[in-house]
Amino acid sequence: MAIERGNPLPLYFQLKEWLTSQMAEGRFAPGDQLPTESALMQEFALSRGTVRQAINELAHEGRLYRLHGRGTFVSAPRVEHRMAQVLTSLVEDMHEQAIPFASKVLSRNAITGDGWLAGRLHVGPNDTVFFLERLGYAQSEPIVVTHTYIPAYLCPNLLDEDMTDCSLYKLLDAKYGIKVQRARRTLEPAPAEEYEARLLNIRKGSPIHLMETVAYDANDQPIEYSKLRFRGDRSRFVFEVVR
Amino acid sequence: MAIERGNPLPLYFQLKEWLTSQMAEGRFAPGDQLPTESALMQEFALSRGTVRQAINELAHEGRLYRLHGRGTFVSAPRVEHRMAQVLTSLVEDMHEQAIPFASKVLSRNAITGDGWLAGRLHVGPNDTVFFLERLGYAQSEPIVVTHTYIPAYLCPNLLDEDMTDCSLYKLLDAKYGIKVQRARRTLEPAPAEEYEARLLNIRKGSPIHLMETVAYDANDQPIEYSKLRFRGDRSRFVFEVVR
Repeated sequence: MAIERGNPLPLYFQLKEWLTSQMAEGRFAPGDQLPTESALMQEFALSRGTVRQAINELAHEGRLYRLHGRGTFVSAPRVEHRMAQVLTSLVEDMHEQAIPFASKVLSRNAITGDGWLAGRLHVGPNDTVFFLERLGYAQSEPIVVTHTYIPAYLCPNLLDEDMTDCSLYKLLDAKYGIKVQRARRTLEPAPAEEYEARLLNIRKGSPIHLMETVAYDANDQPIEYSKLRFRGDRSRFVFEVVR
Repeated sequence: MAIERGNPLPLYFQLKEWLTSQMAEGRFAPGDQLPTESALMQEFALSRGTVRQAINELAHEGRLYRLHGRGTFVSAPRVEHRMAQVLTSLVEDMHEQAIPFASKVLSRNAITGDGWLAGRLHVGPNDTVFFLERLGYAQSEPIVVTHTYIPAYLCPNLLDEDMTDCSLYKLLDAKYGIKVQRARRTLEPAPAEEYEARLLNIRKGSPIHLMETVAYDANDQPIEYSKLRFRGDRSRFVFEVVR
């Protein structure tokens, strides 16, 4: 049975786990209508409050959505990212998984390497650093805001390039012979603040994934510092690990 | 300069990035008092509203904290987890990094492998599965709620073991000769719901990291399914990736 009275977990929590697993295994597919509250109450002998709490939390987490007067439906699955395990760019990762992905440049700028940039990119405080801000769309939906900083001496004409839908790593390689060799990435959850919430079309405070990268070439010269802010309810990172 | 008028990013956002970088590089260390609003306004020629928005958002993200009547201070750094890249248990990961870590068992139970568990663990729907719920503390602070499911036939006396502060992988190896060989892990951000918010002592809705694992032995037999819910403002996952 999906719901066990002897299980110490609260009943609504057990129902939520069961519904999540049905979605993960495709028995409830994206776009499917969920059974009604009454049907779930009857099937599992649960109170309306218990069923409602499970459904409310799943809707709050973006796993279900409601259409007024029509019912509750299963959300589209999250986009699965492998870029925390493999050193690909976001564009390459999406492309390899055949997920329709587009990006547009929000702003591009030449700035100076102030204290914190200088330390990360091994440039002097007066050296020029290119800043690039892009918005990435998976299946036509905005899912990530990217901020990229690159020392200008590496790629002097970068700001003249067409960066729309472009893999930066491929461009650096093709035009400037710069090959990304290794990177250190960190991943942390954060509440969406006003700035990214507006761009990602989500509510302020809802969870995002913040990924920071410092990428190096074969000579251990930092060539990129970036901050990617992913819509939390639409993305998931996947890892295959061995002992 | 840390704040550039020519930069298309909002001024408060630039100040926030600068403050974050100062913390990341240790120039503002955990426990340090932040310069006052007035000092920051003067140093960067910013309005009070701009400085306040930057500080408010950093406090909201858990990177700063306020003490009434005393000022604003830098939070302790996040615990860095490597377990998404390397197949270690949480206990092993913390131990290798010399982070004081303890865990207590909240509940332990023998349940049956209902539909979704059966699929994940390759057991029959009537087979017994052990369920273990633990709360993990790093530096005496609760940071993770773990739910672990293990087929009972693999380790018939598991529920009699003392699981406090215990690495499950080490116990399975030492007592039952079961060696974890590989795992598939996924990581996604989610809002803390009532259940985990209470256990982790955080506000409902603040971000958590949800890590799901299915671990296999050398014969590709699933030996563990787990869900770990990490306090988002206290943890970060770290990856070294190569191309």
